Amino acid sequence: VAVATELVGGYAGRVRATDPVELLAAARSGDRSALARLLTLVDQQGVAANQIDRLVATPSVGPAPSNRSVIGVTGAPGAGKSTLVDCLITEYRSVGLSVAVLAIDPSSPFSGGAILGDRVRMGDHSIDEGVFIRSFASRGSLGGLTVSIPSALRVLKAAGFDRLIVETVGVGQVELDVVGVADSVVVVVNPGWGDEVQAAKAGLMEIADLFVVNKADRPGAAETEADLLGMQHLSLGAPSGWRPGVILTSALNHQGITQLAEALDAHQVFLIESSAGGERRRLHIEREITQRVAAELAKRAGAFSDHERWQSVLTAVVNGDLAPTEAVDELLGP
Amino acid sequence: VAVATELVGGYAGRVRATDPVELLAAARSGDRSALARLLTLVDQQGVAANQIDRLVATPSVGPAPSNRSVIGVTGAPGAGKSTLVDCLITEYRSVGLSVAVLAIDPSSPFSGGAILGDRVRMGDHSIDEGVFIRSFASRGSLGGLTVSIPSALRVLKAAGFDRLIVETVGVGQVELDVVGVADSVVVVVNPGWGDEVQAAKAGLMEIADLFVVNKADRPGAAETEADLLGMQHLSLGAPSGWRPGVILTSALNHQGITQLAEALDAHQVFLIESSAGGERRRLHIEREITQRVAAELAKRAGAFSDHERWQSVLTAVVNGDLAPTEAVDELLGP
Repeated sequence: VAVATELVGGYAGRVRATDPVELLAAARSGDRSALARLLTLVDQQGVAANQIDRLVATPSVGPAPSNRSVIGVTGAPGAGKSTLVDCLITEYRSVGLSVAVLAIDPSSPFSGGAILGDRVRMGDHSIDEGVFIRSFASRGSLGGLTVSIPSALRVLKAAGFDRLIVETVGVGQVELDVVGVADSVVVVVNPGWGDEVQAAKAGLMEIADLFVVNKADRPGAAETEADLLGMQHLSLGAPSGWRPGVILTSALNHQGITQLAEALDAHQVFLIESSAGGERRRLHIEREITQRVAAELAKRAGAFSDHERWQSVLTAVVNGDLAPTEAVDELLGP
Repeated sequence: VAVATELVGGYAGRVRATDPVELLAAARSGDRSALARLLTLVDQQGVAANQIDRLVATPSVGPAPSNRSVIGVTGAPGAGKSTLVDCLITEYRSVGLSVAVLAIDPSSPFSGGAILGDRVRMGDHSIDEGVFIRSFASRGSLGGLTVSIPSALRVLKAAGFDRLIVETVGVGQVELDVVGVADSVVVVVNPGWGDEVQAAKAGLMEIADLFVVNKADRPGAAETEADLLGMQHLSLGAPSGWRPGVILTSALNHQGITQLAEALDAHQVFLIESSAGGERRRLHIEREITQRVAAELAKRAGAFSDHERWQSVLTAVVNGDLAPTEAVDELLGP
């Protein structure tokens, strides 16, 4: 099975517990069901997840070669992200590169359609052994998703994929955090987008390494391109010499895709040849550990509810004797 | 100004620091700009937010009278939530009840349109002193939004509004958490929704106190109604005697709105007359304090980055000598 679009949370119960070392060896030799199982375990964030992460983060498996890049794709709903990712897969496969896609779907209870949609959409690649697609559903735990993704990417790198694409279905802050784990962040907009939201554009300029104006066959593409180019100085990369370019595409017609792949390669070369790549890597790891520490502390906070003191503080708030903010000071100290 | 749809985060810098006691007194006497400023301070989660929360949570201002109910409205994009809320406002105003709406928008960088849309949409109510509307933008801090909202609701109750509506623009897990602060949760779907996603429907059944099949003039409304009624046993409220009803509406034509308001009143009566209301209130406060504790711990975790030990652990991970999961154990102890 080359394509696994299981909803991780929903199918978790079906997965057999197996030795992480064996699973990883199998995944590296091309066993896609072993790979899918590894990702499920990583997403469950249990003891096995920690074992797997130690395996893929230590030198025996090795940090991933620098030519295995992670591409983040985000943008408003309907901008054509899925079609664009589909085109990128085809482009990379045509030059012999293998591709893994993590599709992040944050909208759990209404998301059935989106995930079923993935299956349909990826149909063209379903018999291609060089393509692996996985949907991750956010389950809303504090920092939960953002902790799983970097680990899942390390597993996919260890399994040997050349290009890793993290695609967010939605556009919330959580997805922006997720896409922030990428080496290269692509923000997809459409012609005419953002005519009235200068502040929003500034925010996107901060995270984008590359803009794609998709559906560029529609009116207003050139104006949107000029507008984005005019804001390049706001880029976070600008101090280190990178200004986010703008690529015009029409994914439905497979136009502009080669240019997009070339621009992504150019950004990768920039990261390797300048100090920016190392800085970004350190920043990513710093953010991941901060989130892991926060998630662990939050989990420990939940454990408070067993204690007698917690119950008495809770009762005081229910009775209106204590404000919720005072309850926090009471429990943790100022 | 009766309507304030300021984007809290974006406009925060403009707000004058003023004494919370004075602001609250002004807000209670009908000063809407004082009320808007209070909500901005609450959303900033600083020292003033804690002062305000102590004021509105303590007996001098008093816990809100039980007839001031909080209604949460969620559903898929395009289901017609905004129009429905608009109709509910009109309905409540027609019987002399004042209404405050918190519109939660989690999709920060692309959200300009949604928030501008609010302004346009609420135009009909903009000269009505009995209506107050405020958009809250999620800024992605761990637990940040979910901590602000309960406090904001207490401020609005203290200011004397009879009905408080929390409306989520998106449908992610964060919004479901947010809508979970409500006394009555309304889930809005459309005819034909969910034909293929049984698991998703079960999840919604858990949080819904009431379903609205909006756009019920379209084909399939009766089938969707029957389908939802057939799943009532999955309701979390079922053990205490409440089964979520299904209301058919056509918000665009103002049809079914009176029935919806009556069903909401019936749910409120159920909460007051059964033990369910008290249990829910305790659950809400327990969740709020857990989230506040977690957010506070996460904030303290961020402070780690100043320490020498943090930097050496970080470097070990960057060099591949330590896995991220091991870094957490190293920093926090097992």
